[in-house]
Amino acid sequence: MTNSGASTNPTSAEALSASLKQRAAAVEAMLDRLVPRVDGPEARVIDAMRYATLGGGKRLRGYLVAEVASLFPEQNGEEGAYRAAASVEMLHAYSLVHDDLPAMDDDDLRRGQPSAHRKFDEATAILAGDALQTRAFEVLAETETHPDAVVRVQLVLALAQASGAAGMVGGQMIDMEGEGRALSLKEVSHLHALKTGCLIRYSAEAGAILGGANPEQRERIASYGRDIGAAFQIADDVLDATATEEELGKTAGKDQAAEKSTFVALLGIDGARKEAGKLAERACHALDIFGEKADRLRDLARYVVERRS
Amino acid sequence: MTNSGASTNPTSAEALSASLKQRAAAVEAMLDRLVPRVDGPEARVIDAMRYATLGGGKRLRGYLVAEVASLFPEQNGEEGAYRAAASVEMLHAYSLVHDDLPAMDDDDLRRGQPSAHRKFDEATAILAGDALQTRAFEVLAETETHPDAVVRVQLVLALAQASGAAGMVGGQMIDMEGEGRALSLKEVSHLHALKTGCLIRYSAEAGAILGGANPEQRERIASYGRDIGAAFQIADDVLDATATEEELGKTAGKDQAAEKSTFVALLGIDGARKEAGKLAERACHALDIFGEKADRLRDLARYVVERRS
Repeated sequence: MTNSGASTNPTSAEALSASLKQRAAAVEAMLDRLVPRVDGPEARVIDAMRYATLGGGKRLRGYLVAEVASLFPEQNGEEGAYRAAASVEMLHAYSLVHDDLPAMDDDDLRRGQPSAHRKFDEATAILAGDALQTRAFEVLAETETHPDAVVRVQLVLALAQASGAAGMVGGQMIDMEGEGRALSLKEVSHLHALKTGCLIRYSAEAGAILGGANPEQRERIASYGRDIGAAFQIADDVLDATATEEELGKTAGKDQAAEKSTFVALLGIDGARKEAGKLAERACHALDIFGEKADRLRDLARYVVERRS
Repeated sequence: MTNSGASTNPTSAEALSASLKQRAAAVEAMLDRLVPRVDGPEARVIDAMRYATLGGGKRLRGYLVAEVASLFPEQNGEEGAYRAAASVEMLHAYSLVHDDLPAMDDDDLRRGQPSAHRKFDEATAILAGDALQTRAFEVLAETETHPDAVVRVQLVLALAQASGAAGMVGGQMIDMEGEGRALSLKEVSHLHALKTGCLIRYSAEAGAILGGANPEQRERIASYGRDIGAAFQIADDVLDATATEEELGKTAGKDQAAEKSTFVALLGIDGARKEAGKLAERACHALDIFGEKADRLRDLARYVVERRS
């Protein structure tokens, strides 16, 4: 029987770790192929795009695309899944590059390295973010992603809905407006559902779209994606309040300094941990219909709330 | 017979003026529908998107989409054409919002009004530009734009190619890097072919894609679009050097102040005017196969080089 509870055992943690590493390497190789270095005067913006996307991160979003797609026997080979995985990582990278700008969060560090506008300059960072967004949609629309235009256009539409003013960017706007003002638990939940949740849920759904999921399967995957997205953000708040800068690879304690309303401020550290655990458990159960094929996704749900960076 | 020379007569100027006004109003109405006002904490980013897109401009790009689409009897009603027209105007508006930012061209005025970051703030302008780009792709991917997913995905792909690092954004990067350095005529032509030319050519091609153009028709339309794009930019340089701020609705003489290499600096005012005229004439001839149905597009080619604002 499949293990659908929310406690980790060492064996599944090792299996997840190996799976994460293998898929992260495949996503990295695909990004390197999809944003190739060029010569000529426009090289600088490409260099900045590569700087912002290559060499790092857990690739949670890309992992979700590829791992969910692998649940479906109908999926059209791994090529398309890794292209869609690279696409969502580009979209995510664009949002980080713009988020770090002086007019936004004004962050000098990202994954322990200078953020894009510190490594290059503000104008280049703005343009690189813009072009990463464009490239994310372009990659989805290319025939290599899936032979069926209906599938490709569904991916474009789902990514746009997740990342635009009614999704990720809307969440960033609320976040900017909420600074220095106390938000309720409902408001903070709404903010994060938009700001990070929509793109994480999209990542899971993209795998289901590529795999030709039926409506029930797609709804289960979406539900899983929604819950781990929420759990991820609560865990992030806990990390910001408890981890060191070295562990995070970015400035720690920024939320408190910016007087941001966080889950930790509203629920306390223990309360926030408990809430994240509940969401992870619900996410695991949403995958019951997939049996043990979905064990890595269940491991991921647990990992998301237990990680230290 | 169709008039394919490049001299204007008063009647065709009036016909073009009426056609521009009618289509601009339809594009405006579509933008108002596609970026509706919302309530809630994310309203500010939507307000900024509406501010940046509504109420203005010649809508050259949107006009091209709709007018080219109308050449084709097979086109799927005007709804789809105006949706694609609104989409390219959103894409164009996003590029202007980001271009005006302090870290880029640092422009306080746009169409005689405060630019978006002056009216709102920098963070909101960055986010509104980001979300306008997303919405441009989303609108193309929605079924209302065309019943055939192949057509929709072709539009997404063509827009991405025209506006990304190998198109518009690449041109902006070259433009930033070229400031204060003398560029050759070839370099300036390449810069503008990317920075403004690609999106204007796309606009014409989008009409052809929606209309189900055959390869020869699409090639002719692309050629027309390429030439009026180039003519438009040369005429823009001439305007920057000769028109008043009031006529332009934006800061005049900025190119010279920024020591930008322009067609006027390289060819002189008369030489630049002559080159723009030649391009407009060639653009007109590319439309020969369409007969007099394409007269408004020929009028537009002449208008582009003769306009005063």
